[in-house]
Amino acid sequence: MTLTERLDYYRKLTEQALEQALTSKNEAYYPSVFKAVRYSALSGGKRLRPALTMEFCRVCGGTPEQALPFAAALEMIHTYSLIHDDLPCMDDDDLRRGRPTNHKVFGEATAVLAGDALLNRAFETVLSPQNTRGLSAETVLRAASCLARASGMDGMIGGQILDMESEGRQISQETLMLLQRHKTGCLMQAAATMGCILAGRGDAATLEAAECYADNLGLAFQIEDDLLDIEGDITKFGKPIGSDAEKGKATFPVLLGIARCRELVRELTDKAVAAAAAFPDHAFLEELAVYLVSRDY
Amino acid sequence: MTLTERLDYYRKLTEQALEQALTSKNEAYYPSVFKAVRYSALSGGKRLRPALTMEFCRVCGGTPEQALPFAAALEMIHTYSLIHDDLPCMDDDDLRRGRPTNHKVFGEATAVLAGDALLNRAFETVLSPQNTRGLSAETVLRAASCLARASGMDGMIGGQILDMESEGRQISQETLMLLQRHKTGCLMQAAATMGCILAGRGDAATLEAAECYADNLGLAFQIEDDLLDIEGDITKFGKPIGSDAEKGKATFPVLLGIARCRELVRELTDKAVAAAAAFPDHAFLEELAVYLVSRDY
Repeated sequence: MTLTERLDYYRKLTEQALEQALTSKNEAYYPSVFKAVRYSALSGGKRLRPALTMEFCRVCGGTPEQALPFAAALEMIHTYSLIHDDLPCMDDDDLRRGRPTNHKVFGEATAVLAGDALLNRAFETVLSPQNTRGLSAETVLRAASCLARASGMDGMIGGQILDMESEGRQISQETLMLLQRHKTGCLMQAAATMGCILAGRGDAATLEAAECYADNLGLAFQIEDDLLDIEGDITKFGKPIGSDAEKGKATFPVLLGIARCRELVRELTDKAVAAAAAFPDHAFLEELAVYLVSRDY
Repeated sequence: MTLTERLDYYRKLTEQALEQALTSKNEAYYPSVFKAVRYSALSGGKRLRPALTMEFCRVCGGTPEQALPFAAALEMIHTYSLIHDDLPCMDDDDLRRGRPTNHKVFGEATAVLAGDALLNRAFETVLSPQNTRGLSAETVLRAASCLARASGMDGMIGGQILDMESEGRQISQETLMLLQRHKTGCLMQAAATMGCILAGRGDAATLEAAECYADNLGLAFQIEDDLLDIEGDITKFGKPIGSDAEKGKATFPVLLGIARCRELVRELTDKAVAAAAAFPDHAFLEELAVYLVSRDY
């Protein structure tokens, strides 16, 4: 399979699992929350985190399918964080992936509950015995614990708080790194390490290599994203100020300059590629690291 | 131990566990979210759900302490639901347990994240291997799965959606029962059944008796609460309209009349007491059912 074929395959598996996890017999009694969660969870997106989980499971000797409940759970957590981030009291965004944000369509109260429901459903999904047949209870527990830590106050939510509190303030490169490593890095790392754990390869050296890959890939992707936010706007609006800067958010180009950012993206990508070499059959992981900062997608 | 001595004992255990679960080394980097979660999670309350979990664990042959992480998790989930319920876009309440609500003190954005953080921390707590030493992975997984189902879209969150959508509308007694059984009943039932599971008594008959107890206790307590909302106001404000009615919320007294509600509270309490008889050493469970509708606390 080529890179995009495999990404497509993982995306389809993820979307099928999401469809299945986000339906219920209770929909007859209160349809709105189910409509709201599906609206956001099934609105496209790269499905990068699920792809990492399934691919790390595969290169560690498992099947992508045995990691699927965890892959879908990651995407639910990612989606809930976007719904809550977009709320008027947070980033107050009207558009997400080219469509009106959840609260614009369903109202703020339903959007708050839809976010809560997705976070909760992520844990329901990985803890449901039907979804994890063939895995030992110890394995499921270890992977679920990894997911819970990564998405909580010491992980993603910590990054969201740092992000919110940094708005309109001068922050250092160290703080911005800490912010990004929490806000997006922790979940990326969990995506990779959960894949290894679910394949039965939870030894320290394997997890360290997987974390190193995900950490560098995630940071490279974030810096590239910041660059696009500036350079995309130069082309489009003829002014070097992107939406992040407008919101008073610190970005890597503002702190480090464009040239240093480009260099950093290359360095981080090289580190991710080097970390991938610890795994057999690592062509996809290598190509993915390069592809994500290539702007060709 | 008397009823209140045991309730006090369970409350102290719960609050110690909450204190411990809601601190982190990351507090140095972003203190606000930790302050916000502790503000709401450690602001008193009966700690009824944790007491049920620990007591059911005890009467099923376990120790209250082995159920403690799950007891604390229940309280975190209960607390997060209150924080989000109080938000301006939801019930828009300024006071909770006699203190300003979370968003009044910390702002809406932090309150949204603090709620998210508590929900997430509940799962971190029960999935952390340090917290569940001495329990098998199967047992932890089964109890955690029970918790996740009860708090999700098919449980508590479903009840919150029903509650929100019923505001200002005529609803039937059946819908109000469905609403309450989801909004508070599911978590009560999970409190009881998790206690049994954690003690190693997860057989169908035991769980059914525990569910029956919790279901009837929860509903009796809710109807009593509705009665107090009316009768408390008669004394205080000289008018028979409580805050629920003011918000256009359907309540049992409005639908059934005060006399029928009083009768129903007695019937439900009797059913809870009868269900408790299935357990050895059930004096506390019996007394608790009577105490919760006695208004003497």
